[in-house]
Amino acid sequence: MNLRAAAERLGLSPERMERMLGRVVRDSDWPTPRLLRFDKAVSGIEAGTVVFEEDEIVYGYPKIRRAMMLSPAIKRCFPDGVLVEEKMNGHNVRVASVDGRIIALTRGGFICPYSTEVANDQIPPEIFKDNPDLVLCGEMAGPKNPYVPKEVYPIESMDFYLFDVSRKGRRDMDGSSRTHALAEEYGIRSVPLFGKFGLDEAAGEIKEIVMDLGARGREGVVIKDPENQKSPIKYTSSESNCKDLEFAFRYYNDYGQDFFFSRVVREGFQAAEWSDGEDEFIERCFRLGKSMLGPMRETVEAKIAGEPIVQEVEIMVKDLQTAADFEEHFRRMGVRALFDPPLSCPGGHLVKIKRLVMSTNDKTESVIEGQLW
Amino acid sequence: MNLRAAAERLGLSPERMERMLGRVVRDSDWPTPRLLRFDKAVSGIEAGTVVFEEDEIVYGYPKIRRAMMLSPAIKRCFPDGVLVEEKMNGHNVRVASVDGRIIALTRGGFICPYSTEVANDQIPPEIFKDNPDLVLCGEMAGPKNPYVPKEVYPIESMDFYLFDVSRKGRRDMDGSSRTHALAEEYGIRSVPLFGKFGLDEAAGEIKEIVMDLGARGREGVVIKDPENQKSPIKYTSSESNCKDLEFAFRYYNDYGQDFFFSRVVREGFQAAEWSDGEDEFIERCFRLGKSMLGPMRETVEAKIAGEPIVQEVEIMVKDLQTAADFEEHFRRMGVRALFDPPLSCPGGHLVKIKRLVMSTNDKTESVIEGQLW
Repeated sequence: MNLRAAAERLGLSPERMERMLGRVVRDSDWPTPRLLRFDKAVSGIEAGTVVFEEDEIVYGYPKIRRAMMLSPAIKRCFPDGVLVEEKMNGHNVRVASVDGRIIALTRGGFICPYSTEVANDQIPPEIFKDNPDLVLCGEMAGPKNPYVPKEVYPIESMDFYLFDVSRKGRRDMDGSSRTHALAEEYGIRSVPLFGKFGLDEAAGEIKEIVMDLGARGREGVVIKDPENQKSPIKYTSSESNCKDLEFAFRYYNDYGQDFFFSRVVREGFQAAEWSDGEDEFIERCFRLGKSMLGPMRETVEAKIAGEPIVQEVEIMVKDLQTAADFEEHFRRMGVRALFDPPLSCPGGHLVKIKRLVMSTNDKTESVIEGQLW
Repeated sequence: MNLRAAAERLGLSPERMERMLGRVVRDSDWPTPRLLRFDKAVSGIEAGTVVFEEDEIVYGYPKIRRAMMLSPAIKRCFPDGVLVEEKMNGHNVRVASVDGRIIALTRGGFICPYSTEVANDQIPPEIFKDNPDLVLCGEMAGPKNPYVPKEVYPIESMDFYLFDVSRKGRRDMDGSSRTHALAEEYGIRSVPLFGKFGLDEAAGEIKEIVMDLGARGREGVVIKDPENQKSPIKYTSSESNCKDLEFAFRYYNDYGQDFFFSRVVREGFQAAEWSDGEDEFIERCFRLGKSMLGPMRETVEAKIAGEPIVQEVEIMVKDLQTAADFEEHFRRMGVRALFDPPLSCPGGHLVKIKRLVMSTNDKTESVIEGQLW
């Protein structure tokens, strides 16, 4: 790899690049192709940015900031109306063609073998023949997503949903209209588009959309500038905030405290902005409280019953090698997990995975043995 | 002050003491008497430890650890039965006589002018004439407590409740029996003592006591070894955990995230240990959710209505100078507050205080103006 050329394209001095190597910038030769990966954001380069052998750069997907109150945020962020798309709940990938092979990068810049298999299965290769520099940004979502398993999408396994398009070596996105047009042209699934709204009606319309999504167990929306001149923002349903908490409190000692706090604060602002009636507010309070205590109580009861606390997820692969590679991928990411032998089933192989949540397991065990806090 | 002598009594080298001065160890000459104060725990010396001019040491009050599950914790911590006392909800003070004057030290080792006035008013000076080295450890509680205002105690202002007795220069406590005997001898109010329980019955009895305390808005219990050979532990009611959250979420951005998280986790363990029935569990979930969303919603609504977010507390002083000194005390502790002019009322002067909660105020203001998170 030509470090000097890569540094220059990234706008860094070769000396700086040299110093970062092995620290902020990690070298990886598995799975192929070989790449350099930015572990953290540095000098305006997003975390997850990747440089391949031919000095091709795939920039990290930019963080989408969150509206805490819809109405004022929309008016502050967008000059002239908005486009509203569904925010799918899965993991963010960037799909590109490198050395003639389609690969899927996680947010952090790892090549995920499982996401790569799904991308190869669902994205027609012609799109990269026609546009070799394309970077397809999308969400991998479904019940067989081992990072964020969700039953609420119309699929048995894991699907790719396109939501943005960029180019190698570039940080800008094509914008919503061109993204959906490209998806249609090549027959790629894309995130649902709810439409375009004027500034005055947007907050009210989005409230209805988000409440409907929430009732169906879906996450929320991304709000974009129709002219693609302003950064998008996101907003989520109460049910999604609570589902996050429900998942996390099952493993209460393995999640950061800001994960909990931020979701409660979102609920507080939403209750205020949406002027919950008395019944709605009671329901919201109960939903929030139960989303924390329900799973935590189950965890403690499971431990009292002598069961280990683990996080059970599944993947559904076409090729057995993908399952083996995914196990190695988890290992390299520092995830401790036990993989069951694959089970053949229609369409591929199912692999059950137990992620070890050591901190919650050990903490709960010590407390039920009388350890003090 | 003889630093060398003080260091020796503390078990530190004079050089170490010299190095810590102005950093971990702070010098204070206001209010008198002059003292050195340990800002942080160091070399086994508790934070809040104070050294006076005559090299008299008042050690910091040791942290009481918390049981997350009553039954196993009691069995693990106590060999042979327990004494159960009420844990009052106020602020912890150590009262001692220095240079012939009774003073009250806060947990952090500050002389609190207001607590000192209350201590002088409620503790007969003979106790220190008879026992010059006495350190009376107790809780200041009541609605006019400016740190932790609580309406649930049988007083209009702020009362001192003795819960432990120590001596200058010593770290050990006299134990529950001698503490209550001393309180009775000198007519000092002490924390309620619920009785002595065997190991097998203790958890069940304490559950009843804590549930009853919770229903009356009180905090919980401290569980002590009747033989004073083991460290005490504490346990609190669900209502108290939720009241804490209710207070803190009104000022959601000015409290540490561990404050929120720890209280939710306590509820989770209590729900599991007490095997809540369906109705109880629904009530617990609702109580928890409402304790967070209720006050937060009110804060956001107040800010939308253009009101500043402040924390309103009150003190009730006998002497106007105490109010002036307390204002200076807050200033030195880094608390930003606005003091109203004193209002004469039966028994003294009432002073309303507005503590500024800048972070919550500013954060809420920015969000309602559309700032993203």
